[in-house]
Amino acid sequence: MQLIDGKKISLEIQETIAEEVKTLLAQGKKKPHLAAILVGNDGGSETYVASKIKTCENVGFNSTLLRFPSDVSEEKLLQAVEDLNNNDDVDGFIVQLPLPKHINEHKVIEAVKPSKDVDGFHPINMGRMVLNLPAYVSATPYGIVQLLDRYNIETSGKNCVVIGRSHIVGSPMSILLAKNTKVGNCTVTLCHSKTKDLKSFTTKADIIVCALGSPEFLKADMVKEGAVVIDVGTTRVASSETKSGFKLKGDVKFDEVAPKCSYITPVPGGVGPMTIASLIMNTLLAAKKEIYK
Amino acid sequence: MQLIDGKKISLEIQETIAEEVKTLLAQGKKKPHLAAILVGNDGGSETYVASKIKTCENVGFNSTLLRFPSDVSEEKLLQAVEDLNNNDDVDGFIVQLPLPKHINEHKVIEAVKPSKDVDGFHPINMGRMVLNLPAYVSATPYGIVQLLDRYNIETSGKNCVVIGRSHIVGSPMSILLAKNTKVGNCTVTLCHSKTKDLKSFTTKADIIVCALGSPEFLKADMVKEGAVVIDVGTTRVASSETKSGFKLKGDVKFDEVAPKCSYITPVPGGVGPMTIASLIMNTLLAAKKEIYK
Repeated sequence: MQLIDGKKISLEIQETIAEEVKTLLAQGKKKPHLAAILVGNDGGSETYVASKIKTCENVGFNSTLLRFPSDVSEEKLLQAVEDLNNNDDVDGFIVQLPLPKHINEHKVIEAVKPSKDVDGFHPINMGRMVLNLPAYVSATPYGIVQLLDRYNIETSGKNCVVIGRSHIVGSPMSILLAKNTKVGNCTVTLCHSKTKDLKSFTTKADIIVCALGSPEFLKADMVKEGAVVIDVGTTRVASSETKSGFKLKGDVKFDEVAPKCSYITPVPGGVGPMTIASLIMNTLLAAKKEIYK
Repeated sequence: MQLIDGKKISLEIQETIAEEVKTLLAQGKKKPHLAAILVGNDGGSETYVASKIKTCENVGFNSTLLRFPSDVSEEKLLQAVEDLNNNDDVDGFIVQLPLPKHINEHKVIEAVKPSKDVDGFHPINMGRMVLNLPAYVSATPYGIVQLLDRYNIETSGKNCVVIGRSHIVGSPMSILLAKNTKVGNCTVTLCHSKTKDLKSFTTKADIIVCALGSPEFLKADMVKEGAVVIDVGTTRVASSETKSGFKLKGDVKFDEVAPKCSYITPVPGGVGPMTIASLIMNTLLAAKKEIYK
């Protein structure tokens, strides 16, 4: 069994990007610039955004954080999006989700200029991805593709089961892995809450992507010997072992599943750190205008 | 075994739409208006477009056909698209594919205003479909959903295999059938040319959508007893039996597969006639501004 070290790969990617930034600057070009909009004071969102900003600094990007109180009006938020759309110095930006209930999340996402949508949440980027056109791929699926690629895990002709059909992970993941691309060409089965006899699918899978958000859902008897298991789950559960009072749990019962696997991602330190690497990669693509000319 | 009569369902849908048009006119509203751009003289394209225009007339729509020679410049074609985008009387329009090789097909598709893209080929409509937002769904997948719906074929929890990953049929079909919607909630496996041991997937499928364009590909030993088989193939093969000199062949070896099925679509007369019904349904949605406000 080999552990897929997302933390290490993420840092390697960041180092490569830091080098690229130096090259851009040496060519007299400007620093790539990522902006983030954060609404309210949700603990998780604060942590994620802080970590994104810090990574920007590490790789030599400019970053801007725009904060709004949780009672900000939709109109005002849309105006902030429009301002970032029109700000030529900002290459890409994100609106940290979730947004407060009085704000139409889809409306805000669709207001982001597709060429600056480095989260890949705009429908046009999702559609371009499906249609094999240049697109920003959203962070988690893109990160998983990177992991499979850098560990040289063969995907072509493999039987892959994706558990969970969320818009952000499961659905795009199932599409990406089925495409006729280098990390792709899997026969993909998308399983979800309505799937009957899930085990009959997972026990035949060469690759399992578990993205349903249910701690320790995937047990050893659901996995075949030698499978590759990618664990996307990151549920906070109360813990007396940590200072913070909680622990991150994946969707995979790691202790019993890991010994059967050829490769497995841990939680934390697997898929999680890759999402930030993806965002930074997308921002660099935006700065270099490689997706939208 | 019950035959799924696409021709009958398509006519029923057209009758319902013709009634709706009468109601719109009685309310003092204008006729829905579909325009089509046809480039060159490809026989298949001519037939398809003529049939679309005729159906428009049958249901009481206005229709406009814009013809261009096969050597039309990309610039001129894009101008025609822009004119239709700006023509308030035109509710929706299509650019009949394929286009000549010197024209960038994607560029033309992306130039169509999403709110008039009744073919559902624009990436934004594809992305909105994936994200469960209001969208024009492309004709063939939409037609298949209608057939399953009108024959009350249970899909929830069913094991569905889609063969073929084309952008226009297989990929969107696999996404639609996996969604948490009325005709949906299938566990969907998307199979393609790189799939190993295809039979091991198809023989377990409750529903098979065959969309690879290979005549009589699906044989009886690949299908389980009681399966629902949807045949999307329409390959022209030479035939001495018909006046035209060719016959349409589906992807399913009908004679041997049909007796094992609970439901099956014939070719011709199954999925084919539904594509026009879908286009007309989308045009009505456009005229009523139900997708884009």
